[in-house]
Amino acid sequence: MPATLTPDALAGKHRPALDRALDAIRSRAFWSPHPEHPKAYGESAPADGHAAFEALRGTRMDLGQPGTDGWAGDEVSPYGVELGVTYPHADPDVLLPAMRAATGAWREAGPELRALVCLEILARISARTHEFAHAVMHTSGQAFMMAFQAGGPHAQDRGMEAVAYAYAEQSRTPQAAEWSKPQGKRDPLELRKTFTAVPRGVALLVGCNTFPTWNGYPGLFASLATGNAVLVKPHPRAVLPLALTVQAAREVLAEAGFDANLVCLTAERDGEGVAKTLALRPEIRIVDYTGSSAFGEWLEDNARQAQVYAEKAGVNTVVVDSTDDYRGMLANLAFSLSLYSGQMCTTPQNLLIPRDGIDTDQGRKSYDEVVAGLAAAVDKLLGDDERAAALLGAIVNPGVKERLEAAPGLGEVALATRAVVHPEFPGATVRTPVIVKLDAAKPEAEAAYLEECFGPVSFAVAVGSTGDAVELLRRTIREKGAMTVGAYTTSPEVERLVEEACLEEPAQLSVNLTGGVYVNQTAAFSDFHGSGGNPAANAALTDGAFVANRFRTVEVRRPA
Amino acid sequence: MPATLTPDALAGKHRPALDRALDAIRSRAFWSPHPEHPKAYGESAPADGHAAFEALRGTRMDLGQPGTDGWAGDEVSPYGVELGVTYPHADPDVLLPAMRAATGAWREAGPELRALVCLEILARISARTHEFAHAVMHTSGQAFMMAFQAGGPHAQDRGMEAVAYAYAEQSRTPQAAEWSKPQGKRDPLELRKTFTAVPRGVALLVGCNTFPTWNGYPGLFASLATGNAVLVKPHPRAVLPLALTVQAAREVLAEAGFDANLVCLTAERDGEGVAKTLALRPEIRIVDYTGSSAFGEWLEDNARQAQVYAEKAGVNTVVVDSTDDYRGMLANLAFSLSLYSGQMCTTPQNLLIPRDGIDTDQGRKSYDEVVAGLAAAVDKLLGDDERAAALLGAIVNPGVKERLEAAPGLGEVALATRAVVHPEFPGATVRTPVIVKLDAAKPEAEAAYLEECFGPVSFAVAVGSTGDAVELLRRTIREKGAMTVGAYTTSPEVERLVEEACLEEPAQLSVNLTGGVYVNQTAAFSDFHGSGGNPAANAALTDGAFVANRFRTVEVRRPA
Repeated sequence: MPATLTPDALAGKHRPALDRALDAIRSRAFWSPHPEHPKAYGESAPADGHAAFEALRGTRMDLGQPGTDGWAGDEVSPYGVELGVTYPHADPDVLLPAMRAATGAWREAGPELRALVCLEILARISARTHEFAHAVMHTSGQAFMMAFQAGGPHAQDRGMEAVAYAYAEQSRTPQAAEWSKPQGKRDPLELRKTFTAVPRGVALLVGCNTFPTWNGYPGLFASLATGNAVLVKPHPRAVLPLALTVQAAREVLAEAGFDANLVCLTAERDGEGVAKTLALRPEIRIVDYTGSSAFGEWLEDNARQAQVYAEKAGVNTVVVDSTDDYRGMLANLAFSLSLYSGQMCTTPQNLLIPRDGIDTDQGRKSYDEVVAGLAAAVDKLLGDDERAAALLGAIVNPGVKERLEAAPGLGEVALATRAVVHPEFPGATVRTPVIVKLDAAKPEAEAAYLEECFGPVSFAVAVGSTGDAVELLRRTIREKGAMTVGAYTTSPEVERLVEEACLEEPAQLSVNLTGGVYVNQTAAFSDFHGSGGNPAANAALTDGAFVANRFRTVEVRRPA
Repeated sequence: MPATLTPDALAGKHRPALDRALDAIRSRAFWSPHPEHPKAYGESAPADGHAAFEALRGTRMDLGQPGTDGWAGDEVSPYGVELGVTYPHADPDVLLPAMRAATGAWREAGPELRALVCLEILARISARTHEFAHAVMHTSGQAFMMAFQAGGPHAQDRGMEAVAYAYAEQSRTPQAAEWSKPQGKRDPLELRKTFTAVPRGVALLVGCNTFPTWNGYPGLFASLATGNAVLVKPHPRAVLPLALTVQAAREVLAEAGFDANLVCLTAERDGEGVAKTLALRPEIRIVDYTGSSAFGEWLEDNARQAQVYAEKAGVNTVVVDSTDDYRGMLANLAFSLSLYSGQMCTTPQNLLIPRDGIDTDQGRKSYDEVVAGLAAAVDKLLGDDERAAALLGAIVNPGVKERLEAAPGLGEVALATRAVVHPEFPGATVRTPVIVKLDAAKPEAEAAYLEECFGPVSFAVAVGSTGDAVELLRRTIREKGAMTVGAYTTSPEVERLVEEACLEEPAQLSVNLTGGVYVNQTAAFSDFHGSGGNPAANAALTDGAFVANRFRTVEVRRPA
């Protein structure tokens, strides 16, 4: 098929954005090329997107892939809606060789054209952001606005960030060099050298349930932009957003004259555990994964033929030492605990509060007062059911619900959870967060607060002093990992101690957030998501290390 | 102790070289800041260097390290000279915490100052290049000129290359950013962000016998420049060059006001296997290793708390298809096989030659004629004992000698080895290379040519066609790895096929080398050493991937 998307057309359309993205990763100032307001997508976009999503329900999504040996898929939205979409189930013996074979021309395309094709894929996805929003909402359980923003523009921004890093990394070495070594009075030695970025092979993306696009796009686009083929294995409960992604990618690749099999999907049947089989295949040279520590560690231990980029469990801590904006602090924390029912890898879990209280702009506040204040702030934030549902979204799976229900058994409940009736989807499980009081002085409490309790459960942990808090923070990061750390303090010395702990372990730190930025949110092109230096994740989104080892550089030298 | 080497003084002295190095890694044109001619080091340098080396013999090298619980060292030069130097043997329970504690101020120094200090260390080493040359010669068995060049300026160039990559990588993210996110009519959200490159912890350098400095410096300087402390565990037969390196590093670090324990040495006692113990210590977060595949794979399998950069065994291949410079080809190959008795990880092992001969500028040459021609070229090159010794150096250890002596049992000998009497060191084991004929059509030959036979043994493997040669090349790289691939051909199509194989596997390729550049030599700042994409090595010297994961970036964000 002749390419209908020419390199020139792609360059005209996307090179300015690529240049802007390259600037952004150098400055890490604010830049968000994909608008986060739903209205920015045109007047008919909301209805069109909703209709497109509804039209998908009950269909078979045939992606035209080789080696499709059946169909799989039985997603049920956390909002109670059956999606009824089925997806290709792949025979890896057929599909993987076809994918590997697709990489030759893709390698020859070079870093720039690969980047431009990736940006066109993102543009196609962006144009369907409303459709994706429903797909993300009805697989992750995120509320619509969050599904729209985090699953749409923010995920697309992260994808573009990965493309920019991949392009920059491959462009650090010139494509060719003339080498001339002086030999005194004799003629110089002269060589002509070429340098080609070559892919590792086929990359496997193991998708997650809660942020299928946001957590999936960095690895997908980093691998694709560095010349690899990418096989997407979504979480069985969150296939649709990634299937739409694969569809868009295949469409663009074909139009640009490349083999659509550079990006493929494989769904899995119930209990099949196909990721384990795929991850050990010799063709798979890269694995990107977000999910449990158990499987992340299994991948690291077993998929030894591959580079494994794994985001796993962690225990996020906030050190509460003092504040000059008590209300702002409580409101900010209340929002962080509530957003998407705490089902984010970045949601704070342990709030470390000195047993004898903290200094605030409203006077000294005892430990009990701080905890009660936080509980009241959450109550106030979630007082109205409609607003609560729009912030909480739905509980994503029964495991989260079980942990939430078991939480009162762990300690004194400072804030009880309550069921919220979703105004539109009465079948959804919507719950407000629980806050449990624990005391670090009681050894039996450790089993609770030193494990990840994923979901809307947080622990107000009483500590002897801020110094003790910093020590516990340090130990928590080192032993359990952390995607985020927060701190509230008016003391430069405490701030220094917390920062030192985060530099040494290492973890990403937010200090004194009291306004409209939350510890659990990061912005592409500016914030790093995870540090890659503690057990919660072995890579950060996105830096040079995230892309540098997805390709290798082959040098060919010849006499000049 | 007040710093006598100030940041300003270091910048004045070394910033221009750092900038030049940053240019070089972008252009990969010729640059070699450390002169390779012995005369460039001053008139008295040869005698001074020799005297300094002689003065070291029989001494105890006390580096003033904490946790020294004894002394070890019993190096005997491959030239028959007993060195008699003893070195500190470390108690890791004392030494490693001291090293970790040293990293705080080193992290705070920032990437530029760290780079400048590293360049000062290299400058001190450079000033002692003659002394190092003797140390390398009498541990590796390299001939003096090679020990001088490869162990001196070329190793120093590779070290500086690693410093440049480390600095560039850490400088890609700004130290601070102002972030302002528009909020329509409301005030923008504003954050002040800082980004700090933080080390992984303590790096372990496991040195090798044949190229202690050349193979050691990239990892050592990459780790140090990215803020890590580095513990050097040399090969028991090649301690001195790295001990002198540690000595120079400690001297400079102290003068610059840093803790000298950022770079430490531990020697080991006979059969102690201390690398295994050290590599599993939780403080060790990076391991650089050059040596056997068995131990390299053990490190990769077991030192899971660390990033492991391992250069292991490989089988280097030259495809001989055709040439328009038959004499040049034979002379070039003869030199490559002879240099340092083939004891380089880059020396060609398998020469794949079509059974029915090749086209040359001197007419058609049969397989037998090509092999005989190569044997004659080696004979001519090594005909004079003095010249032979200056090229071959000494056999580094009994294992190499055993393999050399066993080689005639593998097939028909096309060129027999002979003993050369070293003019200065009659106790040295000096041997010319052996060339053994094998036929790929005979299945039993595979056991010989598909294993690394490290040392002066090469195989002239008869193949059915050049196409067969390319297939065998491909299989050899994939299954056994390769640091280098060579090809001789006048056919653009053959050249394309070989290049395609090297791009797909991947491996570094040299085509039609007939002059003064050899397949087994690479130049820092221009050539990559290894691809990092086949079993011979999981990293290349030096690229972004070699440095990017030696540090992590910690972000701290605060309301602006």
